[in-house]
Amino acid sequence: MISSTFQRRVLTSKSFQKFVRDISLSSTMAAKIGDPIPNVDLFEKTPANKVNVKSLTQGRKIVIFGVPGAFTPGCSKSHLPSYVTRADEIKSKGIDELVCVSINDPFVMAAWAEATGAEGKVRLLADTKGDLTKKLGLDIDMTDKLGSVRSKRYAMLVADGKIEKLEVEPDGTGLSCSLAQNFVEKL
Amino acid sequence: MISSTFQRRVLTSKSFQKFVRDISLSSTMAAKIGDPIPNVDLFEKTPANKVNVKSLTQGRKIVIFGVPGAFTPGCSKSHLPSYVTRADEIKSKGIDELVCVSINDPFVMAAWAEATGAEGKVRLLADTKGDLTKKLGLDIDMTDKLGSVRSKRYAMLVADGKIEKLEVEPDGTGLSCSLAQNFVEKL
Repeated sequence: MISSTFQRRVLTSKSFQKFVRDISLSSTMAAKIGDPIPNVDLFEKTPANKVNVKSLTQGRKIVIFGVPGAFTPGCSKSHLPSYVTRADEIKSKGIDELVCVSINDPFVMAAWAEATGAEGKVRLLADTKGDLTKKLGLDIDMTDKLGSVRSKRYAMLVADGKIEKLEVEPDGTGLSCSLAQNFVEKL
Repeated sequence: MISSTFQRRVLTSKSFQKFVRDISLSSTMAAKIGDPIPNVDLFEKTPANKVNVKSLTQGRKIVIFGVPGAFTPGCSKSHLPSYVTRADEIKSKGIDELVCVSINDPFVMAAWAEATGAEGKVRLLADTKGDLTKKLGLDIDMTDKLGSVRSKRYAMLVADGKIEKLEVEPDGTGLSCSLAQNFVEKL
């Protein structure tokens, strides 16, 4: 028989709570055009600096693109640079801000911004616990290679809190429709 | 009543398997002097490049230090540099290699090595899924700030597969006994 102390320890453990959260989140449908952007916080540079993604898009047009990981080859050599180099062109189409989101911690994201020269062009925000990515249903299990659930590669236009355009890589991590040179055509 | 399909889905889910693994690992006693170093793989620069930590220490003397996170302020400004600047002094005491371990992915660890000038002095190895850290019982839950379980700050001397000296920061993340200038006195 399992003791009630053990049961209590299990039920209050962070692991179990995460498991329950994952079960409920894994039933989330992937986001689609017309959906509201989730009301969750991202983090910029430090864990203390919250950026609410819903507020960020209020009354503004924002391009948000998600990547599997800071400093990974596809993200560092292709995806992020495609937006950094086209930031002015994209903003000239009435976009207020470009935001790159990844499930990494805020310190790693800040270091990646510095290493890639993204500052002032693309804002790098940490989805530390994956709250945004999971609510969008755009998470992908990369535990074996990267140690955790990460974000699929995608690009979206969010205007005044609503997803107006969305391109998700068909295989989750490829480099096609979500690259700036292809997504800019849709704006 | 819960359907058997649902039960099967839960029992085979990665989340549930992780939960069960975490429960069994959370009962692990913290490592102590005299213990063998666990027989697990770490990763260097890419997820394809495994480094078995037991083999690494066979017939050699290795200083391994664990840190909460690549690019976090305490690790980037104090802990790792304390070893990088004293690498020659430590090696002159008969130490074959210095290894820094963190629960980060291999790409982030490689970028951190480059950013800190660690290459050739301290080898940065990724404990991608936390296998080493958890088996050592030196994990600490930093989900709120960094998104996951991370490593406590520690320094150990491993000689021929056995832990010969071990200093774990009393509060888990402080910067005292595990810093190179303090640990070198014990060698």
